Amino acid sequence: MNEQYNHIVKSLDDEQRALQGELIRMGLMAAAQLEAALDVVERRDDGAAERVIANDEAIDTLEQQVNHDVIRLIQRGPLATDLRLILAALRVASDIERIGDYAANIAKRSLVLNQLPPLPLTRGLGTLGRMAVQQVRDVLEAYRERDGEAALRVRARDAELDTLYTGLFRELLTYMMEDARAITACTHLLFMAKNIERIGDHATNIAENAWFLIHGEELLPQRDKRDDSNTTAV
Amino acid sequence: MNEQYNHIVKSLDDEQRALQGELIRMGLMAAAQLEAALDVVERRDDGAAERVIANDEAIDTLEQQVNHDVIRLIQRGPLATDLRLILAALRVASDIERIGDYAANIAKRSLVLNQLPPLPLTRGLGTLGRMAVQQVRDVLEAYRERDGEAALRVRARDAELDTLYTGLFRELLTYMMEDARAITACTHLLFMAKNIERIGDHATNIAENAWFLIHGEELLPQRDKRDDSNTTAV
Repeated sequence: MNEQYNHIVKSLDDEQRALQGELIRMGLMAAAQLEAALDVVERRDDGAAERVIANDEAIDTLEQQVNHDVIRLIQRGPLATDLRLILAALRVASDIERIGDYAANIAKRSLVLNQLPPLPLTRGLGTLGRMAVQQVRDVLEAYRERDGEAALRVRARDAELDTLYTGLFRELLTYMMEDARAITACTHLLFMAKNIERIGDHATNIAENAWFLIHGEELLPQRDKRDDSNTTAV
Repeated sequence: MNEQYNHIVKSLDDEQRALQGELIRMGLMAAAQLEAALDVVERRDDGAAERVIANDEAIDTLEQQVNHDVIRLIQRGPLATDLRLILAALRVASDIERIGDYAANIAKRSLVLNQLPPLPLTRGLGTLGRMAVQQVRDVLEAYRERDGEAALRVRARDAELDTLYTGLFRELLTYMMEDARAITACTHLLFMAKNIERIGDHATNIAENAWFLIHGEELLPQRDKRDDSNTTAV
């Protein structure tokens, strides 16, 4: 292998590492946004909500950066393995972008809640949300470390998040039936809870991409899906 | 240009055309699924709902096919323009897959509605849904014809869909306040309406990808975004 070739290979590797670094940074930003949004809901803080909403742009900008980098990497004519990494990066960036959107939407809806009397059920939202934050952090770690087993654990835990979500969904419906004055607030809480459930799905997507990176298109083990809220009546 | 080169170029072109054909087919399937789901809601037909839910798999399979084809095309070492087309195809396939998911989710929720007394507000859902079907069909046409102006028109019309959605959101909240027995049904209708609003967003994404194909990264004109339901109180 001559000097020049060695140099090219190394720098391709560096670029891929940079791409992965961007993804992890983007993912941690999204997790922090979700955490901030939950905090904002709890503290009923309009100013902080506005900041969470405004911060979402930084994640969108990072996604565009990832897309640019992917195009540049592909133009270098990557090998099959690198291609896998690069296409997974595109998908992961898009999942993280959605997580950021959902976090910002939670902050946006908290502005309505702040105009209404406080509800005890926002606590349940916090519990659900913190579980999702953990899922996002864990899957980023699994992705960075190329740890397929850890990725599968995140994916398996999504069923717990779904169960918790379905429970909260039921509670919110019941609450609305008992107190018509809480309907507007509960409806926004329902959508906020749904956002968190969706964030869990995106963490699962990232877990599947991590698996795909390590094992190629080898079949993933079956998994439980326990979001029964689609067919829930109270 | 020698014979052999000519042959390679032509066949690359063929593959790209095949990829585009797959996308359009996939998109038309998603539009048909949404139409079927709306019909199922109107007719309160459990059997037909189950069929819509089962059909979603065909769209998922097509998305995997598109992903395979994209990898094969990239491995041929595409030029910059082709890369744009190929990456747009990935994004569009993912948008269409989501549209299919939302349609299937509407069918799934209709199963709950069928266990409950009929509500007049399902009509409003039909109107909203048919507007979204049209948006999806129009954007596929714009994509196939590489018609940037038509794509922008679809994107602009998303504001009308948002306005209609926000109106329905308000109506559903009001209805729930007046009749606590309708809360479960109205909640599912709220999520179904939200699904349709999101389908509109995905049609908009496809429109932006169509624009991107024609004009590269040239800035898109500003657009209206009128989904005020995030901050709606009744």
